[in-house]
Amino acid sequence: MDRVLTNVNMVTLAGDDGYQVINDAMIGIQDGVIVYAGHKEHFDCHGHPDVMDCQGALVTPGLIDCHTHLVFAGNRASEFEQRLNGVPYEQIAKAGGGILSTVRATREASEETLFRLASERLHGLKNEGVTTVEIKSGYGLTLDDELKMLRVARRIGEMPDINVSTTLLAAHALPPEYSDDPDRYIQFICDEILPAAAQENLADAVDVFCEGIGFSTQQCQRVFHAAQKHGLAIKGHTEQLSNLGGSTMAARMGALSVDHIEYLDNEGVAALAACGTVATLLPGAFYFLRENQMPPIDQLRELNVPMAIATDFNPGTSPIASIRTMMNMACTLFRMTPQECLQGVTTNAAQALGMGGLRGQIREGMQADLAIWTVSHPAELSYRIGVPDLKARVVNGELFIHQHSER
Amino acid sequence: MDRVLTNVNMVTLAGDDGYQVINDAMIGIQDGVIVYAGHKEHFDCHGHPDVMDCQGALVTPGLIDCHTHLVFAGNRASEFEQRLNGVPYEQIAKAGGGILSTVRATREASEETLFRLASERLHGLKNEGVTTVEIKSGYGLTLDDELKMLRVARRIGEMPDINVSTTLLAAHALPPEYSDDPDRYIQFICDEILPAAAQENLADAVDVFCEGIGFSTQQCQRVFHAAQKHGLAIKGHTEQLSNLGGSTMAARMGALSVDHIEYLDNEGVAALAACGTVATLLPGAFYFLRENQMPPIDQLRELNVPMAIATDFNPGTSPIASIRTMMNMACTLFRMTPQECLQGVTTNAAQALGMGGLRGQIREGMQADLAIWTVSHPAELSYRIGVPDLKARVVNGELFIHQHSER
Ligand SMILES: [Zn+2]
Ligand SMILES: [Zn+2]
Repeated sequence: MDRVLTNVNMVTLAGDDGYQVINDAMIGIQDGVIVYAGHKEHFDCHGHPDVMDCQGALVTPGLIDCHTHLVFAGNRASEFEQRLNGVPYEQIAKAGGGILSTVRATREASEETLFRLASERLHGLKNEGVTTVEIKSGYGLTLDDELKMLRVARRIGEMPDINVSTTLLAAHALPPEYSDDPDRYIQFICDEILPAAAQENLADAVDVFCEGIGFSTQQCQRVFHAAQKHGLAIKGHTEQLSNLGGSTMAARMGALSVDHIEYLDNEGVAALAACGTVATLLPGAFYFLRENQMPPIDQLRELNVPMAIATDFNPGTSPIASIRTMMNMACTLFRMTPQECLQGVTTNAAQALGMGGLRGQIREGMQADLAIWTVSHPAELSYRIGVPDLKARVVNGELFIHQHSER
Repeated sequence: MDRVLTNVNMVTLAGDDGYQVINDAMIGIQDGVIVYAGHKEHFDCHGHPDVMDCQGALVTPGLIDCHTHLVFAGNRASEFEQRLNGVPYEQIAKAGGGILSTVRATREASEETLFRLASERLHGLKNEGVTTVEIKSGYGLTLDDELKMLRVARRIGEMPDINVSTTLLAAHALPPEYSDDPDRYIQFICDEILPAAAQENLADAVDVFCEGIGFSTQQCQRVFHAAQKHGLAIKGHTEQLSNLGGSTMAARMGALSVDHIEYLDNEGVAALAACGTVATLLPGAFYFLRENQMPPIDQLRELNVPMAIATDFNPGTSPIASIRTMMNMACTLFRMTPQECLQGVTTNAAQALGMGGLRGQIREGMQADLAIWTVSHPAELSYRIGVPDLKARVVNGELFIHQHSER
């Protein structure tokens, strides 16, 4: 055994329901994998492991942020300020603002710059116990720039203290070069970008923005077919601003998750339940856009659809690099329970990334991704924001201590 | 000169309006006070100061959180969880929950415990550039326990890296000992608690909770009269849940600030304008309580009432130790501008604490309280949450570097 954590109050989440707390527990780790997780009485500590006394600390699975747009360049703060000063969105867009300003800046940026910017943003998530993050492309919108974004995401995943799942989101917005012919851009994604990303093994999944201001359900379906031809998982930004049936289409094609889904109807919820698709809720965008349409939490609950929660960190609609804030907003704005929130950023988020058997719970056989907290009850993780409650993270068995004090 | 900051992009806020940015500036500090703040050309660097090259970093006044309940014991996370699981508030209160559970735990806690708990919470604020914090009593509600809370607050203020302004809030809730006679408790505050706090120099100001579930306008006025008899400044929690006229009464008596004020009417706004009282907005409680009644931002703006923003950090209605989140919420929920938000946590917050001539701006003669950022534009401070953007703080001329990385 390489590492042993003793004196742990363990929130395993390894069960159908509930926190699944085991007090006075031990966790044994070998080769980055949990080989023991349970009461200390039953523990046989062979070898010469590195022993860490957690002094009764609460330990949860490492948190998983399963939906982010962490890699981009440019700055939309001035646009944010202009809008609050009363400048109409049309005028900002005409002056080159909006998503295309992020596309322009991202195209101009080097891999080095993108890596540095994303790493800075990632610190906020790591400081709150995140050990796995999904990162999408979608601000390049050319072959080279989409691959560049994915390469940066892969490079972030090479850091020892974070796991990264990458997603090709070329169907995020229509690039100016194709403004007269969206179908031709979809064709280009299917024929060029997607095969190249698959070829270089840069993408773990393929995502689309299925919306009036994005792409039609039919266009998204074409992208999904191409993805599946290359053996890639699929997922979608669906039913965020209107109900186009994208979630149902995606679920029926076997999507890992459908994300946002404020406008999902009962039929759509039934499709998710039938197909085993995760509902990923993004309260940061809901808050930032001052949306009034609530996602169908009660129906999702009733049909036992697994709910994940993520930051959707992005410069336009959710500039909030805080998974704890998302958990609190899911409680406060969506009336989810703290237990649902914790499941939403661990076991259900893992499922949303196709890592259900690998991460998101504390049990034998899982990768050793842990968050070690100073709080005494798991509900506090959703209740309180801002206090630095994280002591340390374990990522694939390696320990990273977090210190929050100034010097 | 003791310390010089060179290569600074300075947001002075030292003017009637606007950020008041000076690029390529220098700041000279002696004996904890700013002795030079301006263009580098005009700078005469005498003595042998400690020189810090800020490499073009944005420097603002240190942030001021002018309304917190940072000192308390106990934990309300389980109550939060129960409510989201559908347990009615009445049942929770009957089982000993609600504010009186915090009172019970705070009475039982030692000064040492209260100090440790408050210090941990304070880290969240320091990490976001806060250099001055107001701390209220109000969970003791006996002579000894109110004084105990204030002593803890004073002790926090003895740390070199934070300034503390203390507030006696004995009129926060009716203690069980007086449940049949609120007027007798008010009398006890005026005759016993307040004189003792003044005698020991434990309180910089006196606060009240003027509300149907708190104390009447007349009762609050009695407390204010007693405070003024002892030479203490006054302020109030007013018009949070209903319009009782508390803000107008407080303003006419010369209150530094009235806080919350969602239900303030036009007449009340006019009273603030006439009396020079600061309007302190608390978007965290607005968010956490899912309030729909907006504070009268437009009218406050129209009559040039200075607006401050604060966390109201407390276990019942705003467990959010993040001033940056408050700035973002003031923009997103109240449609304030990023500039108003920055003024709200610097120059206007200083005014709300009666420190208008001392802190909250970067100009000669002010205490040297500074926040040094990695962001490039002050609007980013309101726009983005979670990314650790703070490089360092200067508190009364002393430098505190913030490091956010794990080791
Ligand atoms: Zn997204
Ligand atoms: Zn308060």
